[in-house]
Amino acid sequence: MTSAPGKGSRPSPMLFFETIRSLQSAFALKAAVEVDVFTAIAKNQGSVEEIAKSCGASERGTRILCDSLTALGFLNKSNNTYSLTPDSAMFLDSRSPAYMGKAVRFMMHRDQFHNFEHLTDTVRTGKPHGSTHLAPEDPIWLEFARGMAPLMFPAAQAIAQYLQKALAGESAPRVLDIAASHGMFGITIAQQNPRAQIYALDWGNVLLVAEENSRKMGVADRHHLIPGSAFDAELGNSYDAVLVTNFLHHFSPATNESLLKRFFAAMNPGAKLVILEFVPNDDRVTPPPAALFSLIMLANTDEGDAYTFSQLSRMCSNAGFRDTQLLPLEASPNMLVVATR
Amino acid sequence: MTSAPGKGSRPSPMLFFETIRSLQSAFALKAAVEVDVFTAIAKNQGSVEEIAKSCGASERGTRILCDSLTALGFLNKSNNTYSLTPDSAMFLDSRSPAYMGKAVRFMMHRDQFHNFEHLTDTVRTGKPHGSTHLAPEDPIWLEFARGMAPLMFPAAQAIAQYLQKALAGESAPRVLDIAASHGMFGITIAQQNPRAQIYALDWGNVLLVAEENSRKMGVADRHHLIPGSAFDAELGNSYDAVLVTNFLHHFSPATNESLLKRFFAAMNPGAKLVILEFVPNDDRVTPPPAALFSLIMLANTDEGDAYTFSQLSRMCSNAGFRDTQLLPLEASPNMLVVATR
Repeated sequence: MTSAPGKGSRPSPMLFFETIRSLQSAFALKAAVEVDVFTAIAKNQGSVEEIAKSCGASERGTRILCDSLTALGFLNKSNNTYSLTPDSAMFLDSRSPAYMGKAVRFMMHRDQFHNFEHLTDTVRTGKPHGSTHLAPEDPIWLEFARGMAPLMFPAAQAIAQYLQKALAGESAPRVLDIAASHGMFGITIAQQNPRAQIYALDWGNVLLVAEENSRKMGVADRHHLIPGSAFDAELGNSYDAVLVTNFLHHFSPATNESLLKRFFAAMNPGAKLVILEFVPNDDRVTPPPAALFSLIMLANTDEGDAYTFSQLSRMCSNAGFRDTQLLPLEASPNMLVVATR
Repeated sequence: MTSAPGKGSRPSPMLFFETIRSLQSAFALKAAVEVDVFTAIAKNQGSVEEIAKSCGASERGTRILCDSLTALGFLNKSNNTYSLTPDSAMFLDSRSPAYMGKAVRFMMHRDQFHNFEHLTDTVRTGKPHGSTHLAPEDPIWLEFARGMAPLMFPAAQAIAQYLQKALAGESAPRVLDIAASHGMFGITIAQQNPRAQIYALDWGNVLLVAEENSRKMGVADRHHLIPGSAFDAELGNSYDAVLVTNFLHHFSPATNESLLKRFFAAMNPGAKLVILEFVPNDDRVTPPPAALFSLIMLANTDEGDAYTFSQLSRMCSNAGFRDTQLLPLEASPNMLVVATR
């Protein structure tokens, strides 16, 4: 009854406890990002007293937080002095170009979190407890746009490289970026292809973030804005590629087929549909990061899900696309699904 | 930038994402216990449809929950049929004598959880955002008493075995059980030693649970109740052992020394003090389950902590005790610290 996991075959309650306790780890990480303890340590490699002073935090809180972050693998501790791990130095020092700390604004947003707090009700009813965040200009997508762009860097690079090859024959490819958010998928294409014209569609409030990013990245003159909903905005036409990133998981297969038909109608023959998604295997339980994404869709949407490649492939072919393919991304929980108009 | 953890030396953001995502796993487990999906599967080994029907839950919610529990290691899935792992069969089937599901009532209690939601403020101030649950008859300790008893079984056995040897010379040992809660520590001693007399101290509302347990276990005639606070209740005297389980972590070292002096005064010479605690190593960051307990005390108490053996040993000797020893428990996050009056 008391043996540790993996130590022989006696049942152990450790997974149960560790799974519950991990709730606390998530909040410790959020607090660490919010008081910016990683940057303070990067600057000082300090003692509790120095870190607390730099963060404007209490010594008790700083000591227990830093010890906990060490136990969780985010810090090293030696002679009562804390230092960053290579991962934390790259992704959690707010001065790093790869800083990801802002992702807590979206990933641990109070609304998402409160929907999870009522997950029992949601399992019973099949419907989220609170908002699905799909109403026009819901402010949570501003947090997504502001916080999640750095996470999308590897996928954005992969999409741009794929289209660089696939659209090699187009002298000035027109790319429609659906639910563009931070805009980084289209912007990365524009950076790699100096003749590409990007049309970014999203709510008007969110497009301000994409617009700012396109200016920062020096591609604003080829980055056009289409404020509105993917369901009823005027999309334009003659696109050579349509990007549908982190979007289809919010809706049912039937809804997605309708959407894909709209996009199909706006595309040139031979144009490429590029879907970025969490794609579990057909067993729907592996790999865990993709499989567990469905839980977020259960908590937050009426009909959304993490779709398998078989399901996405069927949606694409029902919408008229051909040659649907699955392209894994290196060490990302996401995959690309591409199809041809 | 995109390599998986442990795969070469390139920095990876996976620990960051997994730590945030684990929040969702904790709520999935809570929902699974609350809709009692494990018991439904134990009875039926069923399909989504059968489990949903048995739990009175939606098929969408049941499907995504069961797939997530499989991805997390709590279930097996084969041919679209779910079954329990050996761990889940032992600890999460509500018909099992070792059932631990009720622990979510305390471990994921809304109040604890809301204190963690404000952990950033607590790191800044060093003080909990909400209640410390130390006022008389705070109802959260009823949830502790009702939910946590099964978790204490291994430690209760270990304490009873230790005292069976240590008090072998006493014909009718008198045992004071401080903050007795469910009462299982004293009750287990009474079961193993038919002449032991147990005095259980706790808030009156909580002692009702201990009283019920002592009746169920057939030791009510030797299980006496002392309603009140360990700080000012009339303790009685001439005790041969005092149990201080899961208690000292709520308070400062100075407060604990005062408490231990009170207990000392109520004990016979040669009597045993038995402390059950989360005891991190002197580095305060290993082993993780003990080290991370300090985070719970940061979130929920004004001055509490997970104390090292050096710290506990000093508190004991400052209170007059001698021969303080650390006794690890087999595969438990807790340890025993024993000392002699």
